[in-house]
Amino acid sequence: MKKHNFSAGPSILPQEVLLKASTAIVDYNDSGLSLLEISHRSKDFVDIMEKARALVLELLGLEGKGYKALFLQGGASSQFLMIAMNLLEKRAGYLNTGSWSTKAIKEAEKLDDIYEVASSANANFNYIPKGYDIPEDYDYFHCTSNNTIFGTQLKEFPNSPVPMVCDMSSDIFSRVIDYSQFDLIYAGAQKNMGPAGTTLVVIKEDILGKVSRNIPSIMDYKKHIGAGSMFNTPPVFAVYTSMLTLEWLKEQGGIAAIEKENEKKARLMYSEIDLNPLFKGFASKEDRSDMNATFTLQNENLKETFEAMLKEAGISAVNGHRSVGGYRASMYNALPLDSVKALVEVMSELETKA
Amino acid sequence: MKKHNFSAGPSILPQEVLLKASTAIVDYNDSGLSLLEISHRSKDFVDIMEKARALVLELLGLEGKGYKALFLQGGASSQFLMIAMNLLEKRAGYLNTGSWSTKAIKEAEKLDDIYEVASSANANFNYIPKGYDIPEDYDYFHCTSNNTIFGTQLKEFPNSPVPMVCDMSSDIFSRVIDYSQFDLIYAGAQKNMGPAGTTLVVIKEDILGKVSRNIPSIMDYKKHIGAGSMFNTPPVFAVYTSMLTLEWLKEQGGIAAIEKENEKKARLMYSEIDLNPLFKGFASKEDRSDMNATFTLQNENLKETFEAMLKEAGISAVNGHRSVGGYRASMYNALPLDSVKALVEVMSELETKA
Repeated sequence: MKKHNFSAGPSILPQEVLLKASTAIVDYNDSGLSLLEISHRSKDFVDIMEKARALVLELLGLEGKGYKALFLQGGASSQFLMIAMNLLEKRAGYLNTGSWSTKAIKEAEKLDDIYEVASSANANFNYIPKGYDIPEDYDYFHCTSNNTIFGTQLKEFPNSPVPMVCDMSSDIFSRVIDYSQFDLIYAGAQKNMGPAGTTLVVIKEDILGKVSRNIPSIMDYKKHIGAGSMFNTPPVFAVYTSMLTLEWLKEQGGIAAIEKENEKKARLMYSEIDLNPLFKGFASKEDRSDMNATFTLQNENLKETFEAMLKEAGISAVNGHRSVGGYRASMYNALPLDSVKALVEVMSELETKA
Repeated sequence: MKKHNFSAGPSILPQEVLLKASTAIVDYNDSGLSLLEISHRSKDFVDIMEKARALVLELLGLEGKGYKALFLQGGASSQFLMIAMNLLEKRAGYLNTGSWSTKAIKEAEKLDDIYEVASSANANFNYIPKGYDIPEDYDYFHCTSNNTIFGTQLKEFPNSPVPMVCDMSSDIFSRVIDYSQFDLIYAGAQKNMGPAGTTLVVIKEDILGKVSRNIPSIMDYKKHIGAGSMFNTPPVFAVYTSMLTLEWLKEQGGIAAIEKENEKKARLMYSEIDLNPLFKGFASKEDRSDMNATFTLQNENLKETFEAMLKEAGISAVNGHRSVGGYRASMYNALPLDSVKALVEVMSELETKA
């Protein structure tokens, strides 16, 4: 039985993407070769890479605006360092909204001065700070658009007087925003874009080349751009599968169409959390993430029953992160509305039983 | 028709590995979930990672000798930097045997002094330098065991008075050597181990912790070891497929058994190159690689005929690298002897036609 997969990441991908990826591993495009066995310099793969890079800019509405898309390795965690290597000359400002922001700050601090412009650490990151200032002499401002662990999401972004960098690992391609307000966007693939193993970086080229540091080649965005995202052997399979997911998204009607689906799923989910007295939401209502709903069961005695019912209904991976406890329902682009309906049904059935 | 795939990398993988990997993408282990959709912290994936790490040490004969195996991202190119970050305090010595050694030197030079202990650049890297000294006050000595582009291979390694680091991207797991003479071995997966997207690092733990540099977390081998090779989300699919290839290798009888096959293939290949007057080998005979045979066609007029015959025989990816020209037959572990027979047959048929 196919499960209702609420995994926080690596997470659910569209079924047709999985089928195509699976086929390509045995025989890519009737070539008599597996996708895994061909040179990354072959026309077949160069076409895949170029298509993936173009689809990213098209879907984000960034075509012809001075941006380049790169598919790198090393995860968002590598970007924590790479961003500082490429952009940090003296000081930068970070908004601290959770575990990932905190890690980004710690890594950048090894290179130079990092200031927290605001933080919600005092309330275990259950809200998004607002009304802070970003000094004009900072090299850049960094934020995390969606906090997977805590279930919060930035609904609006500040008017930054300096280049704005955003970790969108868990909500890129999920909602309509003006992506051109950012100068650098990065995202690990394993939520809304593809399998673990590649990281998308979208950079406005004109912010580069302004630091005096002698940047190591492998960390230099300019080198990666110059090499068409093939400075070294790229993660072929992860890039191909990401391309398939981007094609799928385009066929669904792009970000505007998927946003409507995501809103439906989130509305249904939060409405159950709010109306069902057995459950309580973790994040501040106005900052709730449409991607990850975090909630706790009010009566611990029902835990076993609830979890047995979830299992029975084929609902997978709704356990919460240890920093928050309780439950977390991740509702990325590829999760069908029916999966949320199935979860909500179990929650509501538990209420009748209790 | 399945092709005879001589690709230099990403390259041929065992057919049964491809079939298993393809199946896991649709449904992993009858779990109702794709391998791409499960958490890297799930028991399923942690088991895969641990099995892969253990198989590496077992196959290399390094169990219980103080080594740890890591599956990282970023390719061997990232290791050029990471090695220097973790081991370079004042100066290190590099043996320059080709393009990859040269790149390793350039990247490490950004951090501190690098000395070439010897180089074959003067002869377009067609041989391996011998009889050089490694000063005792170097932090480490670095070499490249096999040079994919030029078709040369180190048959013996120096007695190094300092930790020995080796880039084995293109010949790890292909031949019996005393792997315990090295303190750090690294290898991009995409030749003898798996698909592009993961890089194996095998480290003797006691060489770490000796530099004064404040190492960025993502570049710190100790952090990766401490986290069981899951400091951040690993490239799940590439690790799984590598594990399958390592299992396959063990079933073949391990490195000793595959070495015999590799020697048969190389003997057949070089014997044709030497006996057929139409062809000429590029590398010095005593330094010839068992993995990559580089050769040129002596009569350019036969180029079109030869390449048409190769195509007709289903022989793929024998074009040489631009630095050398001519042809290159890569004969990694998964390439069957029959593929070499097919290539040699075409070469010999060309002789009768000429």
